[in-house]
Amino acid sequence: MKLGNQTIVFKNRPKIIGNYAVVGPKEGAGNFGSYFDYVMKDDRFGEKTYEGAERKMVETAIVGAIDSAGLIPKNIDILLAGDLLNQIISSSYAARSFDIPYLGLFGACSTMAETLAVGACLVDGGFFNNIACCTASHFSTAERQFRFPLELGNQRPPTSQWTTTAAGCSILSSKGNGPSVTMATFGKVTDWGITDVNNMGAAMAPSAMSTLVAHFEDTHTRPEDYDLIVTGDLGKLGSEVLIDLMEDKGYKLGVNYCDCGQMMFRREQKPLMGGSGCGCSASILNSFLINKIKSGQYKKILFMATGALLSTTATQQGETVPGIAHAVVIER
Amino acid sequence: MKLGNQTIVFKNRPKIIGNYAVVGPKEGAGNFGSYFDYVMKDDRFGEKTYEGAERKMVETAIVGAIDSAGLIPKNIDILLAGDLLNQIISSSYAARSFDIPYLGLFGACSTMAETLAVGACLVDGGFFNNIACCTASHFSTAERQFRFPLELGNQRPPTSQWTTTAAGCSILSSKGNGPSVTMATFGKVTDWGITDVNNMGAAMAPSAMSTLVAHFEDTHTRPEDYDLIVTGDLGKLGSEVLIDLMEDKGYKLGVNYCDCGQMMFRREQKPLMGGSGCGCSASILNSFLINKIKSGQYKKILFMATGALLSTTATQQGETVPGIAHAVVIER
Repeated sequence: MKLGNQTIVFKNRPKIIGNYAVVGPKEGAGNFGSYFDYVMKDDRFGEKTYEGAERKMVETAIVGAIDSAGLIPKNIDILLAGDLLNQIISSSYAARSFDIPYLGLFGACSTMAETLAVGACLVDGGFFNNIACCTASHFSTAERQFRFPLELGNQRPPTSQWTTTAAGCSILSSKGNGPSVTMATFGKVTDWGITDVNNMGAAMAPSAMSTLVAHFEDTHTRPEDYDLIVTGDLGKLGSEVLIDLMEDKGYKLGVNYCDCGQMMFRREQKPLMGGSGCGCSASILNSFLINKIKSGQYKKILFMATGALLSTTATQQGETVPGIAHAVVIER
Repeated sequence: MKLGNQTIVFKNRPKIIGNYAVVGPKEGAGNFGSYFDYVMKDDRFGEKTYEGAERKMVETAIVGAIDSAGLIPKNIDILLAGDLLNQIISSSYAARSFDIPYLGLFGACSTMAETLAVGACLVDGGFFNNIACCTASHFSTAERQFRFPLELGNQRPPTSQWTTTAAGCSILSSKGNGPSVTMATFGKVTDWGITDVNNMGAAMAPSAMSTLVAHFEDTHTRPEDYDLIVTGDLGKLGSEVLIDLMEDKGYKLGVNYCDCGQMMFRREQKPLMGGSGCGCSASILNSFLINKIKSGQYKKILFMATGALLSTTATQQGETVPGIAHAVVIER
């Protein structure tokens, strides 16, 4: 059922019956190390290329999540996945390993929320019973695709974020036990003219504000109605910008607000503004957050992943960086 | 309602209440020239870059389709779009021009069917009333991204296809008049080991076969149950491969089978194996095909767009070319 302009309420409350997160060694040494299902010993994951490693991470997350749901791959009706690489090859080539229908989605770092929002519609509408929702990112594939060859040893500007090497997968189901996806708010592309590709937090904050305000207005809720409001990977700077922007709109984000990018790494790991990449919020959702909902620590969270929709071609042609944010409400 | 393993039947039969196709000059001079809504005078479309032109084509198709439905942009609940460019910038940057929630999808040249299939679920499930489904491709952006700089004047191998400069958009609605989307079959990623990136038809034919066989099995139909079975852009070679593969599976594709890639250009335009690109099947669907359904010439068609899920990075790393095909049934 549509509520307001951008929000859907799921009357059948699709359940997250399985979840899995696999991360790289640096992420394993970060703040959530003990929560992740699998920490890779090295970021090649036994593959010849970083792209091969990222694909294997997607496969590992999907298999792990299916297994944690007590299912086997042939129980999954459809796979929804996407990633940052050109033509989302990590997802598409991983999907090749499964005899499951596949829909590729692209929302940059908003992909985890995008797959959950679309997946929840497909389950709630009675179209599919079990859906795998997955995304991933890898520092070394993203760095050389979007920025510089790693070998260059380029200096990183202070506003930059560190692309997380991580994959996360959730299994959404019409039956079973687990946290429920009760609402989804679909975001609009928002562009306030940021051109600095090393300041993704500032570029994405307006889209986060846009979706968050739309969510509160559509649902007649306020920040204090959620045990936790967690954004994808705005990082330290971007999440501070979001707090300011929301205050201008009359919403005070308090201690129940946090950002996955800001939390992923320890300070001494020098991630500058924090983590980024599709896998950042995907891996924290599919480990720490879902565990805390299951244990009862959080009863109702708003999970909003944010994406910067740029490409190197767009940037080279002088374009600004548009952002998008999709949100899902997950309840115990 | 799910039927068999991969097919959904839409009980509320979402309607295509608006459609629009914009194409380049070469496409305008092709077999469907008189059917397209707008033929660009030059393939820059008044923009400084080909990428800018492709984005403007997406915007034009969306505005045109909304207008043809007798609606205005604020009547559209959500936009589903994707394209071939890295990080689907044509779609995302075009979405920035509209104050409409946006979901990016990526299925390479299968995107028109992917957006319609997902869109039909979202309408049929009662989540949204009006959805814009759009995709586009541009010869000059695809050529320089996937193959060689245009300035190189590279020779094209005989199995290659010509990326169509075209955009198509459909407006799906829960109400109104127009052809109905009655079923969708979601494809699996299929890879038979083709490594020749200049032979997309052969790479995609097995995925087309996979989805077509799944559709016939799920729905207990046969090729003769459709007035027309139309594939996306297998081209001359790929569609012949599909005919052979289907015959091996016990299905004879007869005179009611055709391929958008094969039909797009005139022989004297020397497109080699025919047209390709997301815009190829999208523009033919949103002009010729929908018109012929409306006029009663076709009562029931199976529209199946096919995509090759490669990237230049995957190819350079020695990977084969996986394909995917999604199908929708459109009835008068």
